[in-house]
Amino acid sequence: METNVTNIIIEKVKKSRISEVDFSNLPFGKVHSDHMLVCDYRDGAWQTPRITPYQGITLDPSAKIFHYGQSVFEGMKAYKDENGKVWLFRPDENQKRLNISSKRISIPELPREIFMDGLKTLVQIEKDWVPTTPGSSLYIRPFVFASGTGLHASPADQYKFFIVCAPSGPYFAGKVRVLIEEKYSRAANGGVGYAKAGGNYAGQFYPTQLAIQKGYQQVIWTDDNTHEYIEEAGAMNIFVRINDTLLTSPVSDRILDGVTRKSVIDIARAEGITVEIRKVRVEELVSASKNGSLKEMFGAGTAAVISPISGFGYRGSDYDLPEMKDSYASLLKKKITDIQYNKADDPFGWRFEVI
Amino acid sequence: METNVTNIIIEKVKKSRISEVDFSNLPFGKVHSDHMLVCDYRDGAWQTPRITPYQGITLDPSAKIFHYGQSVFEGMKAYKDENGKVWLFRPDENQKRLNISSKRISIPELPREIFMDGLKTLVQIEKDWVPTTPGSSLYIRPFVFASGTGLHASPADQYKFFIVCAPSGPYFAGKVRVLIEEKYSRAANGGVGYAKAGGNYAGQFYPTQLAIQKGYQQVIWTDDNTHEYIEEAGAMNIFVRINDTLLTSPVSDRILDGVTRKSVIDIARAEGITVEIRKVRVEELVSASKNGSLKEMFGAGTAAVISPISGFGYRGSDYDLPEMKDSYASLLKKKITDIQYNKADDPFGWRFEVI
Ligand SMILES: Cc1ncc(COP(=O)(O)O)c(C=O)c1O
Ligand SMILES: Cc1ncc(COP(=O)(O)O)c(C=O)c1O
Repeated sequence: METNVTNIIIEKVKKSRISEVDFSNLPFGKVHSDHMLVCDYRDGAWQTPRITPYQGITLDPSAKIFHYGQSVFEGMKAYKDENGKVWLFRPDENQKRLNISSKRISIPELPREIFMDGLKTLVQIEKDWVPTTPGSSLYIRPFVFASGTGLHASPADQYKFFIVCAPSGPYFAGKVRVLIEEKYSRAANGGVGYAKAGGNYAGQFYPTQLAIQKGYQQVIWTDDNTHEYIEEAGAMNIFVRINDTLLTSPVSDRILDGVTRKSVIDIARAEGITVEIRKVRVEELVSASKNGSLKEMFGAGTAAVISPISGFGYRGSDYDLPEMKDSYASLLKKKITDIQYNKADDPFGWRFEVI
Repeated sequence: METNVTNIIIEKVKKSRISEVDFSNLPFGKVHSDHMLVCDYRDGAWQTPRITPYQGITLDPSAKIFHYGQSVFEGMKAYKDENGKVWLFRPDENQKRLNISSKRISIPELPREIFMDGLKTLVQIEKDWVPTTPGSSLYIRPFVFASGTGLHASPADQYKFFIVCAPSGPYFAGKVRVLIEEKYSRAANGGVGYAKAGGNYAGQFYPTQLAIQKGYQQVIWTDDNTHEYIEEAGAMNIFVRINDTLLTSPVSDRILDGVTRKSVIDIARAEGITVEIRKVRVEELVSASKNGSLKEMFGAGTAAVISPISGFGYRGSDYDLPEMKDSYASLLKKKITDIQYNKADDPFGWRFEVI
């Protein structure tokens, strides 16, 4: 393991809260660990990062985060193996993507070392917070937001980078029913859909709430122009199995380049599954569902891992997916989580040892 | 003036900062007044609003504003007339629009009384902060954001509504050169463009910075699908004068329903100007510029009032607008500001007396 090049100021808690937490019954993203990392951008540069007790942030009411949504984030997990070792999964990808997102939102890019060394050091300190109950992990949330002030609609001159951690259980309780959305959209051509920018998520809440009221758990977004092609789900990329071929949309400026998505593509191909990366029409799903060739759909993302879809709603009709034995979803989920939890070889070199 | 129906808890500053402020040289939105209004949403209800000294806000690092951009805002101004009376302009419109925005962003709507009574009471207390130098006013920023915590991508359970005030000079220094944007977009069909949602603004910063580097001050957004129609500018709706006809795009789910825009339409019509509300092609601007029928372009918004455009860039060429005597922009600016500053009759009933 490379040594840290970054100077990090560390202030530990006097007394850990860990004994107060019920690790056998963890929600998703609600319990925070003892410490957090914080790093300020001011005077044109990122300053020395600090690890401190998890604590409140005080901001001026004119901080631009409150007014202009200038924020980006990442979502990662730390996994504990049977020997108590702690692993990350492809953290480089998150490091790079954070900066891709930042650039689009006019946020200064964060030096790679601050991200990587800060992350590693924080997770080392929080290693006891990485849960071991099956399906659980330490969810890690790096994020950057505009703390500089001013009501002029222009980029801030100060930012804050944080990493917070939450020991978490599964994101979804079981299979997910989805609604294919034709009225509301998530992203514009030439917009910010490919960035993990805060505003992309707020815009999804209302249509998703409407879908939830109709008995679905998630919306499948379609392109905002024709609404003919499926794009992605709330915080997941979408895969479709027609006969034995796995289909997923190409990433674009409207679609997030998911780490799980690209890992799933690689694993599937290594397993001999034919994967086609191409636009998928809603009509294709409907007719494949009718003729029985639509075998599976699933979402893929760090938080939800691989989340099988039990059926979809479209134009007032519901289409159920068959119960599959030996589904691609369960195979791929086992393969990816075995790598993540150090239960299998790592032929792709994706695992990253933290401690 | 109706009396307040809302109970507001008021705590005033011990000593005003007003004597420290140079009112003859005000920037836009950088100087804050002594007090602010704050109102919390929790347990499913908006609580009693408070007016307090302007001060920092302390939030949990997991507050959803930092992660999911759940925020909306308004922009208004208070104007002082020659007798020292203070006026607002169509505050009802902002009150209604805040809730339209909130609904789209899954933020609980704010009761009308809290907005109106809170606004009036705060501006009454801050009346000495309303500047009188020409072109200046008290810029007022109501905003709501998600303060509830959790890393699950779903609406928060707690929110905060604030009103802050900033005595301000003009938004733009002079005439504005604009770049017609063909690559980046501001809003999707079925998206949140019609809402004053924070994320809409963050997404504009990067393309706007690129335009600024090329020597423009502002981007004119086009539709994200064809990029053939002009839509709006950063925080302004766009008007175009071809011969003697004033054109402006219809509002849509991509375009903010600006208060200044609709007021300008009404004033222009009352002045006998023909106004056409219809989509405006970029090609129409280019050919009108070439044949001399393009007389004027201007932006309209609360912050920038009416902001004449001196020329536009498109596909690498620059198109200059003629210097106009008796321009519509200057006529309409005079008419609207005369109403706002109580220098003329108010045939439309738009002025609202605060104190
Ligand atoms: C919009 C969106 N799509 C897809 C994903 C999946 O990306 P990843 O696999 O990198 O977590 C996420 C979550 O991170 C997301 O927010
Ligand atoms: C995107 C956008 N368009 C137009 C406007 C103009 O609206 P109004 O005249 O109500 O200020 C604003 C500013 O408020 C805006 O943010």
